[in-house]
Amino acid sequence: MKRKLRMGMVGGGKDAFIGAIHRIAANMDGLIDIVAGALSINPEVAKDSGKMIFLPEDRTYLTYEEMIEKESKLTADKRIDFVTIVTPNFAHFAPAMLALEKGFHVVIEKPITLTLDEAKQLKKKVDETGLLLLLTHTYSGYPMVRQARAMLKQGVFGKIRKIYVEYPQGWLSKLSEREGNAQAAWRTDPKKSGKAGAMGDIGTHAAHLAEFISGLRITHLCADLNILVPGRALDDDGNVLLKFDNGAAGVLMASQVAAGEENALRIRIYGEKGGLEWAQQEPNTLLIKWLEQPTQILRAGSNGFIAPEAYLEAFANLYRNFAWHLSAKIEGRPVPPHVDYPSVDDGIRGMAFIDTVVKSGQSREKWTPFEV
Amino acid sequence: MKRKLRMGMVGGGKDAFIGAIHRIAANMDGLIDIVAGALSINPEVAKDSGKMIFLPEDRTYLTYEEMIEKESKLTADKRIDFVTIVTPNFAHFAPAMLALEKGFHVVIEKPITLTLDEAKQLKKKVDETGLLLLLTHTYSGYPMVRQARAMLKQGVFGKIRKIYVEYPQGWLSKLSEREGNAQAAWRTDPKKSGKAGAMGDIGTHAAHLAEFISGLRITHLCADLNILVPGRALDDDGNVLLKFDNGAAGVLMASQVAAGEENALRIRIYGEKGGLEWAQQEPNTLLIKWLEQPTQILRAGSNGFIAPEAYLEAFANLYRNFAWHLSAKIEGRPVPPHVDYPSVDDGIRGMAFIDTVVKSGQSREKWTPFEV
Amino acid sequence: MKRKLRMGMVGGGKDAFIGAIHRIAANMDGLIDIVAGALSINPEVAKDSGKMIFLPEDRTYLTYEEMIEKESKLTADKRIDFVTIVTPNFAHFAPAMLALEKGFHVVIEKPITLTLDEAKQLKKKVDETGLLLLLTHTYSGYPMVRQARAMLKQGVFGKIRKIYVEYPQGWLSKLSEREGNAQAAWRTDPKKSGKAGAMGDIGTHAAHLAEFISGLRITHLCADLNILVPGRALDDDGNVLLKFDNGAAGVLMASQVAAGEENALRIRIYGEKGGLEWAQQEPNTLLIKWLEQPTQILRAGSNGFIAPEAYLEAFANLYRNFAWHLSAKIEGRPVPPHVDYPSVDDGIRGMAFIDTVVKSGQSREKWTPFEV
Amino acid sequence: MKRKLRMGMVGGGKDAFIGAIHRIAANMDGLIDIVAGALSINPEVAKDSGKMIFLPEDRTYLTYEEMIEKESKLTADKRIDFVTIVTPNFAHFAPAMLALEKGFHVVIEKPITLTLDEAKQLKKKVDETGLLLLLTHTYSGYPMVRQARAMLKQGVFGKIRKIYVEYPQGWLSKLSEREGNAQAAWRTDPKKSGKAGAMGDIGTHAAHLAEFISGLRITHLCADLNILVPGRALDDDGNVLLKFDNGAAGVLMASQVAAGEENALRIRIYGEKGGLEWAQQEPNTLLIKWLEQPTQILRAGSNGFIAPEAYLEAFANLYRNFAWHLSAKIEGRPVPPHVDYPSVDDGIRGMAFIDTVVKSGQSREKWTPFEV
Repeated sequence: MKRKLRMGMVGGGKDAFIGAIHRIAANMDGLIDIVAGALSINPEVAKDSGKMIFLPEDRTYLTYEEMIEKESKLTADKRIDFVTIVTPNFAHFAPAMLALEKGFHVVIEKPITLTLDEAKQLKKKVDETGLLLLLTHTYSGYPMVRQARAMLKQGVFGKIRKIYVEYPQGWLSKLSEREGNAQAAWRTDPKKSGKAGAMGDIGTHAAHLAEFISGLRITHLCADLNILVPGRALDDDGNVLLKFDNGAAGVLMASQVAAGEENALRIRIYGEKGGLEWAQQEPNTLLIKWLEQPTQILRAGSNGFIAPEAYLEAFANLYRNFAWHLSAKIEGRPVPPHVDYPSVDDGIRGMAFIDTVVKSGQSREKWTPFEV
Repeated sequence: MKRKLRMGMVGGGKDAFIGAIHRIAANMDGLIDIVAGALSINPEVAKDSGKMIFLPEDRTYLTYEEMIEKESKLTADKRIDFVTIVTPNFAHFAPAMLALEKGFHVVIEKPITLTLDEAKQLKKKVDETGLLLLLTHTYSGYPMVRQARAMLKQGVFGKIRKIYVEYPQGWLSKLSEREGNAQAAWRTDPKKSGKAGAMGDIGTHAAHLAEFISGLRITHLCADLNILVPGRALDDDGNVLLKFDNGAAGVLMASQVAAGEENALRIRIYGEKGGLEWAQQEPNTLLIKWLEQPTQILRAGSNGFIAPEAYLEAFANLYRNFAWHLSAKIEGRPVPPHVDYPSVDDGIRGMAFIDTVVKSGQSREKWTPFEV
Repeated sequence: MKRKLRMGMVGGGKDAFIGAIHRIAANMDGLIDIVAGALSINPEVAKDSGKMIFLPEDRTYLTYEEMIEKESKLTADKRIDFVTIVTPNFAHFAPAMLALEKGFHVVIEKPITLTLDEAKQLKKKVDETGLLLLLTHTYSGYPMVRQARAMLKQGVFGKIRKIYVEYPQGWLSKLSEREGNAQAAWRTDPKKSGKAGAMGDIGTHAAHLAEFISGLRITHLCADLNILVPGRALDDDGNVLLKFDNGAAGVLMASQVAAGEENALRIRIYGEKGGLEWAQQEPNTLLIKWLEQPTQILRAGSNGFIAPEAYLEAFANLYRNFAWHLSAKIEGRPVPPHVDYPSVDDGIRGMAFIDTVVKSGQSREKWTPFEV
Repeated sequence: MKRKLRMGMVGGGKDAFIGAIHRIAANMDGLIDIVAGALSINPEVAKDSGKMIFLPEDRTYLTYEEMIEKESKLTADKRIDFVTIVTPNFAHFAPAMLALEKGFHVVIEKPITLTLDEAKQLKKKVDETGLLLLLTHTYSGYPMVRQARAMLKQGVFGKIRKIYVEYPQGWLSKLSEREGNAQAAWRTDPKKSGKAGAMGDIGTHAAHLAEFISGLRITHLCADLNILVPGRALDDDGNVLLKFDNGAAGVLMASQVAAGEENALRIRIYGEKGGLEWAQQEPNTLLIKWLEQPTQILRAGSNGFIAPEAYLEAFANLYRNFAWHLSAKIEGRPVPPHVDYPSVDDGIRGMAFIDTVVKSGQSREKWTPFEV
């Protein structure tokens, strides 16, 4: 890379959770400068937040339209290379589409949009323009997740037979959205979050992880979506039976009312000869189980001077892959062979998962086909 | 107790797995003497096995009929008090019924019978005769399982919302039944095992545990039963969505093709204020999770001189409870208040679970009612 | 074995902890009948305890002298084969010596005696008479401890370089001996327990385990013994540097004031190519660590129908080995090749450990030689 | 903070391990710009490394003297604020002293210098100039380490009685320094590393952590330092008995030949009422043990939207604290009350630990006083 890439941010004001995560991830490897932002729809917050992250005043914008418009007028050696969108779900599509239209690459927090249709429109625009899009499915950035995927791709366990993926959280065990919890408020509001609650927020992570690691595709599902805290409009819990395209069986569980759980994403995949297990809360470990041999504990960086990684590093790994790709594109170099990050196609499958799981949840039929 | 109880055993010859377990469990607390047996249908094995466990020659019988018949003729100070049946599933009903008819109490390995109808017949006989029946659902014998049940009964977590129970094993990952594995052979044979495979063998344990700890009853289920190793006649894997009678949602997973897993029974139950987690492979630990407090690690016997317990002690706990009850009955004392062991009603629910889960597995409807 | 062995017990009245453990261990495998006992120095307790375990009245003795005397007069087909001694440390030697003199084999709870000299006298008597002696160093009975020893004997890790053994307990964190805790009372009393407290009670277990698994012998040690709860006469905590006969370095830690710990015995041994780790609180697991390969998790009974074992099974394994040996001796058969249990030589090393560690604790010199 | 701080780096060329870590840590929070560097004594490496991290050519220096000299001539709005020194131990003192003399604040990787005398000279200069110095004892940056310290400061466990700290690594199990491993080469070379090997490299971390969390000071120690891989000049393993200023006992173990271990720093501290345990390999967890209550699992960020942290975040936390302090100093604001990072006094204790532990290792006396 000949220079640092320049990033502009939509959303992520000073009290936002995920915005700060994106900044740390973008900063960590020293490949990206955050130089512009429309950080809040509240002008005071936008300005304060800009100061807090040392943005120049003239690049602290009050709306994403203003940012994209003005940045597109700057000279090539100054203007942002890409726009990162970290607003609530309902506010992903418009800035993403505008950014693409004005020639900016895009990073979007998942789920990609509010609806499957919007996702398909973005896909069309990405294909037309050739611009890059990173969808931050964080968990695909962990080294041991990638190790797992590589092992399954090599077929070390033979045919995959069974996939268990679970994502219990407990933070919505009370009706926190009525007690001033801003995170809870928009995530439980169909207008801001979309047609699914827990399934959209974390079920999509689980489904993505299952497909990402296994290389398989879900073909049918049978969902039991529940509202376990009375008074809520969207599912806060769901259990889903899965069928995969190679005939494997699966179960996906996602809950935000598993009281006492933090963020306990875990996946287990079994094949003919053995299986593997990875858990987000101990992310540097990958358990490799064998039918007739002792279980092995694979550890990230166990043989050498490599720092253990956690959530923020996984996030940063996605940004780094994106930066490598984008930089190669800008500098006219071939795409580095190891570049690998979730993109608009992952976004479309995520939205289709939401659509299908909600449809199945309402159906009396056991199986609903997963169609994109 | 004024004297040791006397036990006669049906099945459990020298190469049997579960027979040896029952003997250890019966011996451990020094409350029971094993004094008679019809240990094998093979006369040589029956005799050798009798010698191995020091049975007198004249009480080493060749058939269960002979044992029950001859023992019933002995004087009250000599004859067995109860019959323990550890044969394959298909050979539970006949000796149990005969024993009850001849006035002997009964211990049976689970599942109680081959069919729900047989279980109901046993129930009728038990009710008529007032004789005792212990069904060895081992996992209900663990101290921390009973601790969990007691806490939920007290309502420490408020209303129960969610139950995850899983039981992955890997030992049927290959077609071992064709390679001389006797355990595999009868368990995968519908004539000997019944209409379900993994669901009958271990799914029933999982279902029993969920109901035992929670105190709730399954009302509906939605099953996906699979034969993941080609060439098998019965399910070797299954995933089941559950509804409980208080409205709680649940998932039950049982697999014998989760390659690399031993016996990884685990249950998690969540209520309004917190949840708990117990795993058979670390049975002296009970995790207590709270919505807004640190997770607690409850340990069996942590405050005092109590030995940690494992599978065999759990088994022995059931026998001890049964011995306390039986002894009180024989001696005309009231039933000790803490006596607690699975009995014929648990057996009926187990058989109904098998019936329902198989029916649901064949249905295109999402939900099948659980009816006894 | 042609018949069950007959055991008489000294100590182990109804409120004793370790006596009950010995009975369960002796009962478990069905190889031993407990037929006589001098269970308490309190005659009432002795009688009640005898009833509780179904001893005949005429073999419920009031003193060990009476038991040994009267049993020695019984015919060979009736009298006890061996005496099990589970009294406090100070009351081990006399009954053991008397039993040996009268021709009975002996089982003793550790530490073998109150002093090294007494242990040497027992050794002399055992050698003279050819009688068997089992010293119940429980931890050497765990399957994974034996697995560890076998692997080290095979040299899978090359030369052993380092041994860490630790045994933190917390139950003496308060001055419980003044609050009516009988276990605490005798264990902290030099007259009943001997010249060491924690080092005698649990440090000996740790030292035995280190030598048992590694096959090495301690040659020098440097001890820091502490009384961390004021008012106590014996060490309740100690840290010891070790040198082994092959040049390996070691550390032994034993504490009974590690508040909040149960019984957290753990050992780690490292060689040139890898190491291993075993912890009493997860006894069916043995971690095998490799310099340049993933860590392996060895599990007892993971490939087959073998029940997981805990403390009581480990104890029973010692009794079973002893029973196999004793039975062969009685029946004139050769000693079965796999027979393996701690005996009087282990007892002598244990007493020498106590002597040396106390001497070192009082010394200003860094290293004190370990001499027997 | 009104602006980002500017950092210049000494050492940390493109193949260095710890240099990259410092950059990630400095970058992560977006508070620091790396604007200058003397990254290698090899001019080619220095230039390439400068390009790799996007340094301007005119601030890519070939020696630290050049960097400090030229930067000191730049205007206040351009020149670096502080110098970060990540060279091997022997090359810490000279650049640190020169930086301080020229008015630059300093960040140094630990151990602070090659000798205690050098550390004292730095201390004198820091005191004279009022400049800031951050010593990157990483482990003190973990949130749960700080939580542990806070709890002990509040006295939740009463008087501290016992401290176990251990740091096993396995990466020097072979004579890697002779096989081209650059990290091994300088760390095992007394000229570059100082008078201790494992004790200087990781024993100092362990000692610092014990004092940092407990708030106690080591007063005496008894060391057994070993060279377990023949052919080495410095200790690769050591076990140390400790006495603390409140009378508590302790053990410190550090080994780089614990084959199969990664970086298994772990500390356990026990007081009158309970204890705590923290392990670097699961850094977001703090176990809180109680004498008569269940153990609690404290988790960083369990109640809210806080990302789990790992090694790099811990490192970044130190930089952030340093940045907050430095920024306040530059801007004339009072020191923020929560600012907390290891400094030159920690460096002096670290060097005194090395001196004392080596002296004790050579002594025949049991206890050597720890004097600064």
